[in-house]
Amino acid sequence: MITLSLIGIGTGNPDHVTLAAVRALNEADLILLPRKGDAKSDLIDLRRLLCRNLLDDPDRTRVVEFDLPRRDAQADYLSAVEAWHAAIADAWAALIETHLPRGGQVGMLIWGDPSLYDSSLRIASRLETCMKGCTKGTAGYPVEVKVIPGITSLQVLTAEHRIPLNALAEPVQITTGRRLREHGWPDGAATIAVMLDSGGAFESLVPEGLYIWWGAYLGMDKQCLLDGWLADVAPSILERRAALRERHGWIMDIYLLARSPLGVGVRHRDDQ
Amino acid sequence: MITLSLIGIGTGNPDHVTLAAVRALNEADLILLPRKGDAKSDLIDLRRLLCRNLLDDPDRTRVVEFDLPRRDAQADYLSAVEAWHAAIADAWAALIETHLPRGGQVGMLIWGDPSLYDSSLRIASRLETCMKGCTKGTAGYPVEVKVIPGITSLQVLTAEHRIPLNALAEPVQITTGRRLREHGWPDGAATIAVMLDSGGAFESLVPEGLYIWWGAYLGMDKQCLLDGWLADVAPSILERRAALRERHGWIMDIYLLARSPLGVGVRHRDDQ
Repeated sequence: MITLSLIGIGTGNPDHVTLAAVRALNEADLILLPRKGDAKSDLIDLRRLLCRNLLDDPDRTRVVEFDLPRRDAQADYLSAVEAWHAAIADAWAALIETHLPRGGQVGMLIWGDPSLYDSSLRIASRLETCMKGCTKGTAGYPVEVKVIPGITSLQVLTAEHRIPLNALAEPVQITTGRRLREHGWPDGAATIAVMLDSGGAFESLVPEGLYIWWGAYLGMDKQCLLDGWLADVAPSILERRAALRERHGWIMDIYLLARSPLGVGVRHRDDQ
Repeated sequence: MITLSLIGIGTGNPDHVTLAAVRALNEADLILLPRKGDAKSDLIDLRRLLCRNLLDDPDRTRVVEFDLPRRDAQADYLSAVEAWHAAIADAWAALIETHLPRGGQVGMLIWGDPSLYDSSLRIASRLETCMKGCTKGTAGYPVEVKVIPGITSLQVLTAEHRIPLNALAEPVQITTGRRLREHGWPDGAATIAVMLDSGGAFESLVPEGLYIWWGAYLGMDKQCLLDGWLADVAPSILERRAALRERHGWIMDIYLLARSPLGVGVRHRDDQ
């Protein structure tokens, strides 16, 4: 049989890896490392670094890199994602058949945590069906999925700004840039965390009374943080984001917006 | 000066500690361990275990236990919490003055992650003011706060159930049992994660079409998981919760509720 471990590795700080992740890496017979194209080469670099630094016995654990299938940018968003997940599951199955013909433990290093805006669990749920289509030894092997939690960019954002995610006893909405643009501020939310924003979805909000804590490349050496009243800092964030994207060729950023104070971390307007 | 590191340690599985947490523990001159009363002795036991297993030089790092001030259960909730935070900050200041008269690095082991429904950041923001009231050497020392993120119970819940937190590209609301009872299902949320529920706030919802993933003592040896359509499993969860609380003297549990399928993890009604 095949055990597939989805191992959360944090977001770029090698020290954010847990002891459970180190153990799971070392228990794997095969580790699959996806290459996502040149622009985001930093993302595979961290995975390579972790394998190099944390694997006790490189002879036992085989590390195989592969090119991640590309997502069709033309079609309807959800159908394009479905087709993309199917293509990735097929790629995983083919690699397992080639490199682990008698079955065993497969490890995947997942950026952040496998639970938060990550596709690996959905792809993994297709893997058993894909294995049935294999023609060699592994055909029809059952697949057991394990999940090792990892530190998310949201946790690095709050840790680096030294703020809580929630106002005292208040709820938090975790949402996407697309959703914020289309639906505005969610009813009843005191705080919202915005992920997967292609840039500046906060501009669709009335900024008065909103405070923002922004971070890019969280956990990495090139991490960048900004915070302030949205009305004051929105232009600086957009400018900084564009400059960083230009310099590094890609960007990943997230932010927290609060209507009511979080109890700590807000600068008075006079401080600025 | 004083550096206060709030070190997220996860929720009971010692392997969920990060390498950064191990490093921060070993850099501390003084570690303060709060005792929360006999019923929750498991919670200090994990902290003691981590100190015993992870500190390289017990002679260098002083570990001091103290009784956490109790929260006044009678007064208005928010005022009671404010007064309680002030009392804890005073206790921290007094301990630092006694055990670290020349300043240095203080470590606090925080259950889960310091950002999520945790008071330590709010208490820490009061510490510098409290230090001004000290009469000995540390009086007026500046306090620098550092945060080391840790794995939350929410991440252990999704990892153990092998489910994503969010439906594809959909938002998630993290909320409290109290809030769910008072305000019902949040508008526009596809998924909600409920924490700090004193028991069965999901009973206030119309259960049709809702799926629940529940977990108690997440990450600990006595971890217990249940999932199913809310209409089917709500009574079993309440019964199990009462029995576990009776057996262990305390309980911590959380759950995820979804209206739309998460893409994986939902049992068809025929499977049950």
